[in-house]
Amino acid sequence: MATRQKESATRFIIHVITAAFWLGLIQLPSGLVAQKLSPQKLDALVDKQMWLAIDELSDYVSLPNDAVNPANILKNIAWTEKAMTKRGFQTTVLKTNQLPLVLAEKTFPKATQTVLFYFHLDGQPVRPSEWNQKDPFVTVLKEKTTTGEYKDLSGNLPKTGVNDEWRLFGRSTSDDKGPIIMMLNALDILQTEKQTPPFNIKIIIDTEEEKGSGGLKGALASYKNKLQADFMIVMDGPMHSSNLPTLTFGCRGNAGFTITTYGPVTPQHSGHFGNYAPNPAFRLARLITSMKDEQGRALIPGFYDGITFDDETKKIMAAVPDNKQAINKALMIVEEEKVGNNYQESLQYPSLNIKGMKAAVVGKGSGTIVPEEAVATFDIRLVPETDGKRMVELVKKHIEKQGFTVLDHAPTPEERLKYAQIVFFEGNAGTPAFRTNINEPMGVWLRKAVSDGFGKEPVIIRIMGGTVPVVPFIQALQVPAVIVPLVNMDNNQHSPNENLRLGNLRTGIKTCLSILTEPLQQRAH
Amino acid sequence: MATRQKESATRFIIHVITAAFWLGLIQLPSGLVAQKLSPQKLDALVDKQMWLAIDELSDYVSLPNDAVNPANILKNIAWTEKAMTKRGFQTTVLKTNQLPLVLAEKTFPKATQTVLFYFHLDGQPVRPSEWNQKDPFVTVLKEKTTTGEYKDLSGNLPKTGVNDEWRLFGRSTSDDKGPIIMMLNALDILQTEKQTPPFNIKIIIDTEEEKGSGGLKGALASYKNKLQADFMIVMDGPMHSSNLPTLTFGCRGNAGFTITTYGPVTPQHSGHFGNYAPNPAFRLARLITSMKDEQGRALIPGFYDGITFDDETKKIMAAVPDNKQAINKALMIVEEEKVGNNYQESLQYPSLNIKGMKAAVVGKGSGTIVPEEAVATFDIRLVPETDGKRMVELVKKHIEKQGFTVLDHAPTPEERLKYAQIVFFEGNAGTPAFRTNINEPMGVWLRKAVSDGFGKEPVIIRIMGGTVPVVPFIQALQVPAVIVPLVNMDNNQHSPNENLRLGNLRTGIKTCLSILTEPLQQRAH
Repeated sequence: MATRQKESATRFIIHVITAAFWLGLIQLPSGLVAQKLSPQKLDALVDKQMWLAIDELSDYVSLPNDAVNPANILKNIAWTEKAMTKRGFQTTVLKTNQLPLVLAEKTFPKATQTVLFYFHLDGQPVRPSEWNQKDPFVTVLKEKTTTGEYKDLSGNLPKTGVNDEWRLFGRSTSDDKGPIIMMLNALDILQTEKQTPPFNIKIIIDTEEEKGSGGLKGALASYKNKLQADFMIVMDGPMHSSNLPTLTFGCRGNAGFTITTYGPVTPQHSGHFGNYAPNPAFRLARLITSMKDEQGRALIPGFYDGITFDDETKKIMAAVPDNKQAINKALMIVEEEKVGNNYQESLQYPSLNIKGMKAAVVGKGSGTIVPEEAVATFDIRLVPETDGKRMVELVKKHIEKQGFTVLDHAPTPEERLKYAQIVFFEGNAGTPAFRTNINEPMGVWLRKAVSDGFGKEPVIIRIMGGTVPVVPFIQALQVPAVIVPLVNMDNNQHSPNENLRLGNLRTGIKTCLSILTEPLQQRAH
Repeated sequence: MATRQKESATRFIIHVITAAFWLGLIQLPSGLVAQKLSPQKLDALVDKQMWLAIDELSDYVSLPNDAVNPANILKNIAWTEKAMTKRGFQTTVLKTNQLPLVLAEKTFPKATQTVLFYFHLDGQPVRPSEWNQKDPFVTVLKEKTTTGEYKDLSGNLPKTGVNDEWRLFGRSTSDDKGPIIMMLNALDILQTEKQTPPFNIKIIIDTEEEKGSGGLKGALASYKNKLQADFMIVMDGPMHSSNLPTLTFGCRGNAGFTITTYGPVTPQHSGHFGNYAPNPAFRLARLITSMKDEQGRALIPGFYDGITFDDETKKIMAAVPDNKQAINKALMIVEEEKVGNNYQESLQYPSLNIKGMKAAVVGKGSGTIVPEEAVATFDIRLVPETDGKRMVELVKKHIEKQGFTVLDHAPTPEERLKYAQIVFFEGNAGTPAFRTNINEPMGVWLRKAVSDGFGKEPVIIRIMGGTVPVVPFIQALQVPAVIVPLVNMDNNQHSPNENLRLGNLRTGIKTCLSILTEPLQQRAH
């Protein structure tokens, strides 16, 4: 313990010196722009920074951050402003029609272009009783035992070094306070090394990402100029499961629709009307079956229109070290759907997914009736080639071709008596996808930054399967954007026992440093 | 009101005389067997009995009879025994492993054969607040107004006569105390006319029909001999919607099965796994669609095997005065399923009905996930040609032919990793159907009884769509059985505001009289 205290004291002194520098108390000769550092040099620098980063992250995590509680978010904003100011950033609290955002800005000598970084400080709700620790906001460092359990290391820490397999448990250690701390500590290292980034930095910190980023979206009109940048980097979400450095060039969007089919106007006795009153569940099943083949490929005309890959793209997707056997074993499936030739390819296409289906009651409370209606709710994950509005229209047309009258409302008695087969169709064009070309200047720049920093090519994700709430923001700014995920895939994001693997804290800081020291390419116009 | 009191007094005297007769205080020359009465004579006799029957039914209904309360059922049993004893029946309370039953028996001069009548005295639960009267167990006589509402006639009763369109509201007025009262009052009339039925009578009164007749089924082994009869008549359920005298020669049985299909072992993020993890709702939909065509006809091989109709049967079914337009308008459907050529024909076939279907969540609480499983529960209404066990096996085989591995349990992890498409199949052979041949002696006898009594042919229902709990009992006794329904179809059976149309009370008594005066045909062996 004494050793740990001594180390803490050392880290405190380093913090003070770093802060003094950023606050301008220590002056450096101007124009000392960042020099590229070798992977070995980077490793050594990051290694020295690790305990400082762990302590700072623990301090940040100690502030509860569920955005249902605005007072708590304000405390997080104050902490963030202080941390940014300490690093010499100018901060502004941007008012929105929901919770305010934090914008931190710093310009650097000789820098002509600007990179905007996106993070969020809010976290998912917690139910402490479901956590294997007393308080989700008091971090606990744990080590995996041979039986696969995680053991609290408190009071039993080795004297030196940080084991990459240790994990820091606490809400938002990964999602998304961890990445903020990685960036801050990378800036500190750069400072200690007396270097400045080759570009100006803007950092926008969302405060309601877990609630859909409503404030951020609403703020765009007012702050578009303030947020203008040449490139945008989103530092949120998990990296490839291999934990190799990952660059994600896009994400799918999300549209959806709900269809309701109808039988008799009220549930009917299945004895008196079985073989007579049409059953809406059979009708729904027939419609659903018409939409996809047995291998999971959509049968709706035009659904995959415009999607093609050149050889380079195919090579990039095949190069992602996905382990099909491991994925299938984790899902406990024998065969995956056959939309693409591999996992990455499957994400390049729009999906057609039933997320919920219902007719009358299954199990307790079930009666022998012909139900009055059956409902299925779908989501369509979009890709850039498939506009949400168009896709919803394609589905609607397909349903009409199956012989149904499609209404935008529940049928009236007159309509029920007029049309033999009715579908009430509720469509939602949703959030679009985004994808930045890998060969654009931004892609070339980031790939070079990470390759040089790690001595190997990063994992290139052409498009990720999920949808991030920041997409409308990216699109409104009309800025090339790339997601640089830094945390471990198995971080229990959104669940109890969220954690950050310390190896990811290390590579995260290193990734930030690699980017902060890489000269920008010219943006193509 | 004075008139009503005077009438009541008169009725009381008649009751006393009747009771005195049945108790043997008044002796008649033995051998005075029932003579056939003309429809006109019957009408006159029943007309005189109407107020007596209404009062007795009101008294019977005043005893709450939800079988969840055994003490209440015991009071109903006592009332029933007293009413039977008054008519000269010997009663026995039959103990079962649930609530006891009432058996009433009486032999008559020169009678050599026995008819067993089935009724039940228990009723559906009530929620008084949902009724348009203070107490569901205090009957209210009502008249339909021109606006279609029912108006309480209390305190405003006409001096004479009973309007057939008036209705007596109260729990079990129709289901099934009304029919018991019809039988008792028919016996009283016969008595007044100094006649005796041409057969011996056994009356079994169920006390838990609304809970599935568990006691009755359990009692069979012990009381089979006591209950032996040549014919059995079930007096329960509504007659044809036309209110024409109805004979129902059978009812469908009820089997069922539940199928569950599987996707990933736990719900998966539809972004990360949409287009990769197979969706169990699509699999379920495909299976369902393979089972029936668009017109509602089952596609499962063998499903309709053995079902044929001769010309006479077709004629009988077509003769039922069903109004397709009225039925379809009530159901608010444009087209019915095409299993049979008319409503009656559709009931001659087994049905395949989805009574519930579910995958994940629809509406509030719905998430963007690939569900882990999808479930559908089916019921199959059986006909005599389609044994429940065989039907369930046919379905199972059909599912296997669609490429699914069918298990009798939820799949283990090993099975999930071994079989590409799994169905967990839970079958239930259920309750069989019964159908008595219309041309058997019992059919000939009853058709003649009703034709003679009403001066016209009854509506012949070859088989009704629903399933009555008494079927296993009929089958165990191996006795030809016919359902003689007496109450109005729109009686709100099982719902608030249950009622008996007085026109049905009248024709019900008349039907009982017609049967009680019709000499038996010889039973074919």
